Amino acid sequence: MASLSHIELDPASDTPLYKQLAESIRSLVQNGAIGPGERLPATRALADRLGLNRTTISSAYAMLEESGLLEGHVGRGSFVAGNFQTADPKKMDWDAFLPPLGPLPHAAPGIEISFASSRPAEDEFPLAQFRRLSKAVIDGPDAADILQLGSPHGYLPLRRFLQSQAAASGIARSGDDLMVTNGCQQALDLLAWLLISDKQVAAVEDPVYHGLLRVFRRAGAQIVPVPVDGAGMDIDALEEVVEKHRPRVLVVTPSFQNPTGVTLPLERRKRIVEIAQRSGVVLVENDIYSDLRYRGKALPTLKELDASGQTILLRSYSKVSFPGLRVGWVIAPRPVVARLADIKQVSDLHSDQLSQAILLRFAESGELERHLERTRRAGLERLIAVTRACERYLPAGARFSRPDGGMNLWIELPAPLRARELLGSAQERGVDFLPGPYFSESGTHEHGLRISFGGLPPEQIERGIQIIGAAATELVSTRGSVDMEPAAALV
Amino acid sequence: MASLSHIELDPASDTPLYKQLAESIRSLVQNGAIGPGERLPATRALADRLGLNRTTISSAYAMLEESGLLEGHVGRGSFVAGNFQTADPKKMDWDAFLPPLGPLPHAAPGIEISFASSRPAEDEFPLAQFRRLSKAVIDGPDAADILQLGSPHGYLPLRRFLQSQAAASGIARSGDDLMVTNGCQQALDLLAWLLISDKQVAAVEDPVYHGLLRVFRRAGAQIVPVPVDGAGMDIDALEEVVEKHRPRVLVVTPSFQNPTGVTLPLERRKRIVEIAQRSGVVLVENDIYSDLRYRGKALPTLKELDASGQTILLRSYSKVSFPGLRVGWVIAPRPVVARLADIKQVSDLHSDQLSQAILLRFAESGELERHLERTRRAGLERLIAVTRACERYLPAGARFSRPDGGMNLWIELPAPLRARELLGSAQERGVDFLPGPYFSESGTHEHGLRISFGGLPPEQIERGIQIIGAAATELVSTRGSVDMEPAAALV
Repeated sequence: MASLSHIELDPASDTPLYKQLAESIRSLVQNGAIGPGERLPATRALADRLGLNRTTISSAYAMLEESGLLEGHVGRGSFVAGNFQTADPKKMDWDAFLPPLGPLPHAAPGIEISFASSRPAEDEFPLAQFRRLSKAVIDGPDAADILQLGSPHGYLPLRRFLQSQAAASGIARSGDDLMVTNGCQQALDLLAWLLISDKQVAAVEDPVYHGLLRVFRRAGAQIVPVPVDGAGMDIDALEEVVEKHRPRVLVVTPSFQNPTGVTLPLERRKRIVEIAQRSGVVLVENDIYSDLRYRGKALPTLKELDASGQTILLRSYSKVSFPGLRVGWVIAPRPVVARLADIKQVSDLHSDQLSQAILLRFAESGELERHLERTRRAGLERLIAVTRACERYLPAGARFSRPDGGMNLWIELPAPLRARELLGSAQERGVDFLPGPYFSESGTHEHGLRISFGGLPPEQIERGIQIIGAAATELVSTRGSVDMEPAAALV
Repeated sequence: MASLSHIELDPASDTPLYKQLAESIRSLVQNGAIGPGERLPATRALADRLGLNRTTISSAYAMLEESGLLEGHVGRGSFVAGNFQTADPKKMDWDAFLPPLGPLPHAAPGIEISFASSRPAEDEFPLAQFRRLSKAVIDGPDAADILQLGSPHGYLPLRRFLQSQAAASGIARSGDDLMVTNGCQQALDLLAWLLISDKQVAAVEDPVYHGLLRVFRRAGAQIVPVPVDGAGMDIDALEEVVEKHRPRVLVVTPSFQNPTGVTLPLERRKRIVEIAQRSGVVLVENDIYSDLRYRGKALPTLKELDASGQTILLRSYSKVSFPGLRVGWVIAPRPVVARLADIKQVSDLHSDQLSQAILLRFAESGELERHLERTRRAGLERLIAVTRACERYLPAGARFSRPDGGMNLWIELPAPLRARELLGSAQERGVDFLPGPYFSESGTHEHGLRISFGGLPPEQIERGIQIIGAAATELVSTRGSVDMEPAAALV
């Protein structure tokens, strides 16, 4: 049993030596280095070999015997129990018992440039400021409170700050309340719980963020798509959907929509609010990207335009600051927030309080705004890089959206070229992206693809689009595309 | 318009003065201090009054005009817009639209001693160690990673640590995996998603943690109660329930169950595992209190006793360290964890990473174990105090459980005295607790009540039980209880 001679223990550890030894032996048995039925060395022999006290060895053996891993036979020594782990024949067959797991996100090998993940610029992260402000929170007088059980509504000082900010900017109206969620994803989930029962209709943009489809799908919603063009949701199509399907909920991302990157102009915003007011549909406004506007003028939220109180606004710090800290929030009329808080309590009691306190400090100190300014400067460069690269490298007949902010851009390939086909070819060349059907309830958008450019420096963006363009051109020339117009903006 | 003279601006703020001013005016309008149609002071007059530059005033007015809050009339000045807020008659009636909100937790005024909240001792908190270790994490090389989007499975270094700990102690078997959740509450919620479809049967202890009932209720489960006595779940009753209702899931809290505080002895644990293996029911083991054992010998988890892999183990740092940091975990066979991670991604992407990193450091450094030792010492004192007080002050005929750890103890009042009745009387005297029906699906246990003693020092515990005892004795003597035995342990 040579393996036992190589055990290394740490005399400086807080864990007593006999426990360390027992754990090491257990690992050796569990990974098969010592098999069932094998006899362990006598305590004295092992004590000599490892330079330990003999009682340390016998305490470890005793502990393992008690747990059933070893069997002690008086006069014969300690043996690895024969029925350890593999003995029981009636192992539960979970894969047969549970519903099948859907396809997992692909992870192609050898990817050098990934346009697959919608995220902000990592290299712009204000790590030094984060460190300074976090330490101030941790050393501050509220630390003990932060560590205690909190409210499902969120950490009170953060809520107060966000509420007064929202009131001052005209986004929150009298009668509105605010609650904190684990990012925007949880807000969508809580809203689906609150608003959707079996087979009720949720109208969503098409294409749309995959995580939104999943939330409403699992809530049992009937999902009705409303097409998006270069200026966001198609209003005539929306009118038709509302008339025909009478949706209970309409989810809209007015600014820099995921996956297309497009933004609803003021006129369309007004019409959506007006349609909602007329039809009674609940408007869920997913407004997590609007702070990432790189050019052009800010537009009012649907919530600001809607005096009827029918709009529920979702915001988040995750996209604009630290995605690893999960802090988003909902602004809505008080009866809505009261019920969401009740639902949140069932889901996970409340959100992590330390992150809430740190993000509050970040916002209050002005560091968040300074960070946003830097992110917007970097974002504009990246946006220009991706747009130029699309103009330059995409094959004739391809079209693409013209975002003014955010992290995503949408490409429509010339038929018959499919995004999945192109993806295989791009991945072979080290470039990744997400194909259109991923963003569609019905699996359409087979010619579309999302380019998430936010997390990549301009050089990589250009090289990545160049590679995609070359792969597409090659596939088009092999297949012979009919459509021979030059690459055009998707508007 | 006197209110405008009291506006205070902060010249040192990052927000420009004109924006600060605009926000102050907006607040005054929104809270009704300035009404629709009112004229604002001329820019020069207000500039003088506030000691500001005149262009600051006109910039603020211009900003508010643009947003529609003010209307400017050339030569006449600026007026609060007439149709602001109150103008729209078609306000959405959310209370009519949404399902009614259930009764909110009572918050009686004038409570001095609250036995209502199940929590650890706040004064034992190792705040200095928390500060030191948190700062080490924040200054450490992984800080940038921690702030980036994480995995639905949890923060990898924490997962690895918990996995090796679970493997070394024999709790995790080969083929098991581990994932992090936002405390145990989210783990229950994700399991309900995974395991329960409409009307499927979940068997639970009775009485049981209210948050567990709510999770399974909203998942659409048919909840079947299994009575708990002084030694945990009644095994004969469980046999009957399994035979009659064929539950899909059985949830058990083997140690220091909430609300009763009782612990399953080894023999019952073995029988539960054996029943599960025989019947195929999935065992969910809610093991969040076992580290809080104040006396007696630790018992193996159901997971350790179950070689069939049918047991899903839930643990949490929330009850033993910092409840405000929401970190729990699930240990289960790999196919279960894969699906739970998929469901978690839909719920909230992943858990907060900073808290995971800090708790990892806390555990690795040995500080968690030292803190646990302190908590256990304090817990034992509190346990002794609550037990003695029950013996001394409860009226004849009352019975109570005898926990060996945890935070809760259960009292059964002598009939016909009801806990709700007693609660009213106790609250008038400044003492709070949760009455039995709160912990029951069918509203039974009207004579039972939960005493959460973990968060209170011994003197307060004694005084609180004395007050409850006096109130109960008074009610009993008014009503005339039949049962005249002395207070006895509930075993």
